[in-house]
Amino acid sequence: MVRIDLNSDMGESFGAYTMGHDEQLMPFVTSINLACGFHASDPRNMLRSVQLAKKHAVAVGAHPSFPDLVGFGRRNMAATPEEIKADTIYQIGALWAFCRAEGMRLQHVKPHGALYNMAAADIRIATAIAEAIRAVDPELFMLCLGKSQMVEAAKKVGVRYVEEAFADRAYTNEGTLVPRSKPGAVIHDLGLVAERVLSIVNHQRVKSIDSVEIPIVAQTICVHGDTPGAVEMTKLIRKRLEESSIVVAPFGQTG
Amino acid sequence: MVRIDLNSDMGESFGAYTMGHDEQLMPFVTSINLACGFHASDPRNMLRSVQLAKKHAVAVGAHPSFPDLVGFGRRNMAATPEEIKADTIYQIGALWAFCRAEGMRLQHVKPHGALYNMAAADIRIATAIAEAIRAVDPELFMLCLGKSQMVEAAKKVGVRYVEEAFADRAYTNEGTLVPRSKPGAVIHDLGLVAERVLSIVNHQRVKSIDSVEIPIVAQTICVHGDTPGAVEMTKLIRKRLEESSIVVAPFGQTG
Amino acid sequence: MVRIDLNSDMGESFGAYTMGHDEQLMPFVTSINLACGFHASDPRNMLRSVQLAKKHAVAVGAHPSFPDLVGFGRRNMAATPEEIKADTIYQIGALWAFCRAEGMRLQHVKPHGALYNMAAADIRIATAIAEAIRAVDPELFMLCLGKSQMVEAAKKVGVRYVEEAFADRAYTNEGTLVPRSKPGAVIHDLGLVAERVLSIVNHQRVKSIDSVEIPIVAQTICVHGDTPGAVEMTKLIRKRLEESSIVVAPFGQTG
Amino acid sequence: MVRIDLNSDMGESFGAYTMGHDEQLMPFVTSINLACGFHASDPRNMLRSVQLAKKHAVAVGAHPSFPDLVGFGRRNMAATPEEIKADTIYQIGALWAFCRAEGMRLQHVKPHGALYNMAAADIRIATAIAEAIRAVDPELFMLCLGKSQMVEAAKKVGVRYVEEAFADRAYTNEGTLVPRSKPGAVIHDLGLVAERVLSIVNHQRVKSIDSVEIPIVAQTICVHGDTPGAVEMTKLIRKRLEESSIVVAPFGQTG
Repeated sequence: MVRIDLNSDMGESFGAYTMGHDEQLMPFVTSINLACGFHASDPRNMLRSVQLAKKHAVAVGAHPSFPDLVGFGRRNMAATPEEIKADTIYQIGALWAFCRAEGMRLQHVKPHGALYNMAAADIRIATAIAEAIRAVDPELFMLCLGKSQMVEAAKKVGVRYVEEAFADRAYTNEGTLVPRSKPGAVIHDLGLVAERVLSIVNHQRVKSIDSVEIPIVAQTICVHGDTPGAVEMTKLIRKRLEESSIVVAPFGQTG
Repeated sequence: MVRIDLNSDMGESFGAYTMGHDEQLMPFVTSINLACGFHASDPRNMLRSVQLAKKHAVAVGAHPSFPDLVGFGRRNMAATPEEIKADTIYQIGALWAFCRAEGMRLQHVKPHGALYNMAAADIRIATAIAEAIRAVDPELFMLCLGKSQMVEAAKKVGVRYVEEAFADRAYTNEGTLVPRSKPGAVIHDLGLVAERVLSIVNHQRVKSIDSVEIPIVAQTICVHGDTPGAVEMTKLIRKRLEESSIVVAPFGQTG
Repeated sequence: MVRIDLNSDMGESFGAYTMGHDEQLMPFVTSINLACGFHASDPRNMLRSVQLAKKHAVAVGAHPSFPDLVGFGRRNMAATPEEIKADTIYQIGALWAFCRAEGMRLQHVKPHGALYNMAAADIRIATAIAEAIRAVDPELFMLCLGKSQMVEAAKKVGVRYVEEAFADRAYTNEGTLVPRSKPGAVIHDLGLVAERVLSIVNHQRVKSIDSVEIPIVAQTICVHGDTPGAVEMTKLIRKRLEESSIVVAPFGQTG
Repeated sequence: MVRIDLNSDMGESFGAYTMGHDEQLMPFVTSINLACGFHASDPRNMLRSVQLAKKHAVAVGAHPSFPDLVGFGRRNMAATPEEIKADTIYQIGALWAFCRAEGMRLQHVKPHGALYNMAAADIRIATAIAEAIRAVDPELFMLCLGKSQMVEAAKKVGVRYVEEAFADRAYTNEGTLVPRSKPGAVIHDLGLVAERVLSIVNHQRVKSIDSVEIPIVAQTICVHGDTPGAVEMTKLIRKRLEESSIVVAPFGQTG
């Protein structure tokens, strides 16, 4: 039996500001990464997001960030591993409490934005995050960019992890993401995106930007929630997966 | 066997700023209320504070506040009960995670500053806090101002609670605190303060500002950490209590 | 020659979050109140808002608030007059600098949200704001709720002021705003709103919620930018005013 | 007539937190760099700092920073030049307003911490700051690290500038600061520090860490306010300068 998880960033509203299409997208994904107040969200929005996740039976993960609300956590910061570890523990704990208040279990932790990018490339930062996860709850999964330093850190620290692939992003021959600044980095053709997901899930292979078949392993596919057409794309991916008798379920769900 | 707890606000440093005398005071108290980032502290300081508490075998509580860093949480805010409940869950969770990271157990929750004062007088606010506590962990204690609406809320919501008395504050004949703006509100004579603590602990009585003996019940005595002479006062109180064979221990510690 | 100003709150986007319909509404108003980073906006959005105002030849005012980003400045805070005065000076200065960078002149200051409501009722708070305005630039106008304590403060401190009326809000027989919680407080009929504006501008009179004709003086009419239909309402008001040969121009524009 | 300015970072208290020794140090310096709320300070502290500067007849400059209160502005951030320019305009404006409220004139702008270090090395960042300064007030000086990209940016943009040297820091043979991480980077001998200042001011020369005499030009000497012995060091420097008949005065003061 083949299975896959679909994850998406959510819970990014803040105070009087709304962002994303959480209610429309949630029926089609299986795991969500919720902002914890450092780049987006606030306590009331976190509570609402967890309640919405519960209603849709979606697994919840923390989406910790650098403390940069005005920059939406997208700007690299020269924080020390100690600062990153403490910031990550703080944010996991805050979201954990809302899960507990709603009788839910926190499934995973996925760093956000600049922290994700830096952790993917820098073992010290990835290790700080892995240590934070293990310190709070050794049952938590670390959601890692496939083949990145995050995977190495998870192994080293001894944290459970999954690797993610991106549904609508092009890959190099080496299996790394083509930077967004390059032409062809983002794939907009819905049918093609769905096809690529099926190829990754069924055959652990995908075509690189140079049309080379490369190996790729992923237990979860990231779908974006904030791009136009995100809901349509996710619906189609989900449909194709189910038509192919692939089990679409949270990665933390066993059996 | 008579027993009492001594609690103090701590962990109020923030970033490059230091506040309080935590290291000097910690050997003499049994429970501490740690700031959670809304009026003071930050993730790294919270981690350090929990590590210090562990070293001194002091019980840890969360000290949630209105989100008012520049005002140190001392300004009343017209937040709704829903906002207060969510803010409190968030802050408890953040501190819980640091306790968990250090293998400690969170003992209690005591609202800070303006939130404390408002909760003492307003059952809706006190109830929001009590509900937040129960939602996160029904084993947690709510640390309440004696005879206040906080006690009523804890009873109503079904949360374990303790009542606190103030070592260096004068009481009215009705058993309420004399406002700080009134003369005689704060007692500066160390010997007198220690004597009053013994009277509260041994006889559940204290002299009001009008020299009337009033009944007072407390499982914990609050000692301030930021006033000059705080360490001396706490040392003396602790010494007198131990000389009187009173067990000075965290209220959450049974047996 | 009869003249009136139309003012609206704008510049309330923040970081990655957008709010309001500034571009659509700006062609129809003559003065705008720009958030200064305490309840909304940030330096880049302030710069953009001033540039947009310049393009549309709209007069710019500062819209200072309590420091409450997550609450959008809508929650009363027990700040002291000294704190309010300093916060107001800070926010005026920040916006002044963007105006100066674009070769514009700051026209006025209008407190936002909870600060507006508190200043309207409390002479000490209104005075703190008036003093802040005078301290930064005695040429600035204070934009006041008509007949409120803000007017009294402006007179006392010696600050130029204008009084505003609300296009879509009902008034009591005493000339105060009917609270939003009461039925009929907000008028949704566009034609009726435009008619009321004409009545205020031409006759200094409007019908109260009890159908009593009451006197009302206003040099500026507030139109909301964030309600559905705000653009349509403002367009209609502007059209009716111009059809009646009323000069619609910033109040700070002389001659 | 030889003249020099002594500048120091001040106004770094925040809310309930105090930092530095502003009152003790201010009688001995001639220019101060005041925090503007992004790495330290808040409106009330800014007002107090400007009032203190006025009392001591010290010239005031803005000390803008990355928005990083918890990190005290010491962490590099990947902000864009546009973000840095807007953040700088905002902070200059805020401090300008307090100066105006006290009848003082803002003299200069000196970037703080990580922003200073990045601007010294990166012409794009230095240019963003220079453009912000010119946009707000072309009379303002940019306070630059000597020989750095800040100087180049000031020239390019057409902003008045001064170069600063550090009283207690070692220099390389190339005239750049020895990084703090290296041994000998900070000079602790008060007499030696004062002697070096005299050498810089009188002879435009100083001995490098390798004992080579290097040329150095500075219109202002930076003295630190937060290190132990800072007051003593500054007093001694001032005394020696005055004994040598050097005019110690703000660089913006002409005649």
